Amino acid sequence: MTEKKLHFGIIGFGFMGQTHAKMITDDLDYAELIAVCDANKLQLENAAQGYDTYLKADELLKDDRIDTVIIAVPNHLHLEMVKKVAAAGKDVICEKPAAMNATEFEEMQRVTEEAGVRFTIHHQRRWDKDYNIAKEVYQSGTLGKTYTIQNSLYGFNGNMHDWHVYPEFGGGMLYDWGIHLLDQMLYMVDSKLVAVYATVKNVINTDVDDYFNIQLQFENGVTGQVELGTYFLSNEDGWFERHWFLGGNEGSAKIDGFHPQGEITRTTDLLRNVPGQITMTAAGPTRSFGPAPEGRIVTEALPEVNVSHRDYFDRYYDYVTGKGELIVKPEEIHRLMKLMDAIRVSAAEHRSVSFE
Amino acid sequence: MTEKKLHFGIIGFGFMGQTHAKMITDDLDYAELIAVCDANKLQLENAAQGYDTYLKADELLKDDRIDTVIIAVPNHLHLEMVKKVAAAGKDVICEKPAAMNATEFEEMQRVTEEAGVRFTIHHQRRWDKDYNIAKEVYQSGTLGKTYTIQNSLYGFNGNMHDWHVYPEFGGGMLYDWGIHLLDQMLYMVDSKLVAVYATVKNVINTDVDDYFNIQLQFENGVTGQVELGTYFLSNEDGWFERHWFLGGNEGSAKIDGFHPQGEITRTTDLLRNVPGQITMTAAGPTRSFGPAPEGRIVTEALPEVNVSHRDYFDRYYDYVTGKGELIVKPEEIHRLMKLMDAIRVSAAEHRSVSFE
Ligand SMILES: NC(=O)c1ccc[n+]([C@@H]2O[C@H](COP(=O)([O-])OP(=O)(O)OC[C@H]3O[C@@H](n4cnc5c(N)ncnc54)[C@H](O)[C@@H]3O)[C@@H](O)[C@H]2O)c1
Ligand SMILES: NC(=O)c1ccc[n+]([C@@H]2O[C@H](COP(=O)([O-])OP(=O)(O)OC[C@H]3O[C@@H](n4cnc5c(N)ncnc54)[C@H](O)[C@@H]3O)[C@@H](O)[C@H]2O)c1
Repeated sequence: MTEKKLHFGIIGFGFMGQTHAKMITDDLDYAELIAVCDANKLQLENAAQGYDTYLKADELLKDDRIDTVIIAVPNHLHLEMVKKVAAAGKDVICEKPAAMNATEFEEMQRVTEEAGVRFTIHHQRRWDKDYNIAKEVYQSGTLGKTYTIQNSLYGFNGNMHDWHVYPEFGGGMLYDWGIHLLDQMLYMVDSKLVAVYATVKNVINTDVDDYFNIQLQFENGVTGQVELGTYFLSNEDGWFERHWFLGGNEGSAKIDGFHPQGEITRTTDLLRNVPGQITMTAAGPTRSFGPAPEGRIVTEALPEVNVSHRDYFDRYYDYVTGKGELIVKPEEIHRLMKLMDAIRVSAAEHRSVSFE
Repeated sequence: MTEKKLHFGIIGFGFMGQTHAKMITDDLDYAELIAVCDANKLQLENAAQGYDTYLKADELLKDDRIDTVIIAVPNHLHLEMVKKVAAAGKDVICEKPAAMNATEFEEMQRVTEEAGVRFTIHHQRRWDKDYNIAKEVYQSGTLGKTYTIQNSLYGFNGNMHDWHVYPEFGGGMLYDWGIHLLDQMLYMVDSKLVAVYATVKNVINTDVDDYFNIQLQFENGVTGQVELGTYFLSNEDGWFERHWFLGGNEGSAKIDGFHPQGEITRTTDLLRNVPGQITMTAAGPTRSFGPAPEGRIVTEALPEVNVSHRDYFDRYYDYVTGKGELIVKPEEIHRLMKLMDAIRVSAAEHRSVSFE
């Protein structure tokens, strides 16, 4: 008996398609790359030995050796490709953002269900290291009752490349990075999302969003904040990386950067309701703010986690071989797409949207 | 002809009343402190030589030498005291928060107008140094079109002192500090406020708010964010001070601390819509985020400003002597109180509130 293998085809052999090809051929001993396809001939020149190349998705899909297809074309083509792959009876791993909106995604769910093929989305950032530390800090309860989870990502470029500058291709930062940051938040906080309020802007780009600040009110009392700016500058070390801040009633945690640094911070002593001792700050009188006395602030190390993006495929393989459940579930991504839709309504109309 | 002088009485001789007394007697050559009053005899022991002391506001108000009364009692007593002072025909400087809500404030406006006395609120933080730098950066247009103004203040105490822990006395951080931070935002951004979305929490205190995050959407495209936590920890230097961040399409500015530090930051080159060059980060592929190349990020010094809280009284004196207009206008504070009311609705109902 031979161990089951995954036989991959990749549609769209650009940046991400090539990244997938490398992962499959170099790292995954349970997988084989059979063929890749790209409408742009020049991209196919980047193909290595050992797998076929096609110019048309339809041709790749005729290849009977392929059982699983990764879709890595620009966002507006995901639906069309999911339909083709499902019709060809092959399992589907589609890149994020799964679809342009929840309605498109529902169609994807329907066609894959009807065809009886597996269907999932490549949300490999559920295995980001900084995120998994944040998730572990939150879920372990070490901060007591967490009241805020803030996730931010700042850039200096201001602009987006290639098709990301065109709305009709599914451009903009909400689709590009927002979807990851929101998926991480939803996958972390196991609670109904009560309300969403979003600010979405065009700072440098005229046509697609390049700044957003999203407030997520969960039923369990956690408020999530997701902020991204492509032109949000500081000369601080490590600024142009991701930042997590978690605040609870028994401590705070900071996790900074994709090679995460940071700590859990606590107070040794809370101010109780005592007759106010008067303290002065430079800006005038205050008895609530100002530097902490020596020794009042103590830190602890962040938990260790051991994750990598490869885990996405390992878990997918576990699922296919019956050793585990599907991690990135269509119903979760449906909720995520509904959230994306709500964010666009909220931002356009400057109002909060009730969610669940 | 002698130069006009202000003859002050102070009602409430606690922390703030004593701060006022010291300012008037030590610093203001155009003002004299005639008398102070406090219901608590022990507080009157803190009075210096040179002015009278009373136990009751009514007695102080009978003193004909007094033309201007500062009200520095706990928040829930402001309305009662404004009425008394106006009835006595004396000018009113009331501590912040002016009132418990907009309706109370309207009553204050009515009684002071009817009595024909001057009426203003002690919003001396309009002359905070860090704030004035932020305001100058914003109003000078050096950041191009500003899209975000963020103001945050974090504490380690967790708790509030004295009457601030009781809702019925007007306790909580929204009344204590929120009112300053919001007044600063409204006084800075000369635009209609379209919508407000607020998260207000009780992290350590059970009865009064001690964390808030307020999103202010202005008609001119600026989004204001005001965040305060009394238990929002980090071991970073200067964390427990105030932080301003301004983002525009031609640069960002950071102003940190009440003795402000910071800089304006710009990019020498924006990424235009070029065929994407592939860059890798630790967390995987990305072409939009990651450290800036050497020399790409440049900084400039913040503008210099010369302000102090004493300016509040100097400007008030200019107004009384006809040399300038009233800076802290009742109609501005009425708007501020309406904003406070809207924030409480927004937070309680987890929804945005349309404003102007
Ligand atoms: N999960 C992640 O972290 C991550 C990272 C980057 C991109 N992505 C996603 O991957 C997808 C592709 O993004 P990218 O950065 O690789 O873009 P890209 O432009 O580098 O590659 C897309 C490729 O698709 C090809 N293509 C276009 N139309 C086609 C068609 N009809 N048939 C076959 N090929 C076609 C293009 O020629 C191009 O080579 C997007 O959905 C994007 O959101 C995901
Ligand atoms: N502008 C600022 O930066 C600033 C700073 C701190 C406080 N304040 C404001 O000043 C006011 C007082 O705050 P505080 O910190 O000084 O409080 P505090 O408790 O130190 O002082 C209040 C004083 O009022 C007295 N008092 C209570 N009821 C009275 C009555 N009926 N008649 C006379 N005296 C009475 C109390 O005995 C006490 O001494 C509040 O409205 C507060 O918001 C403003």
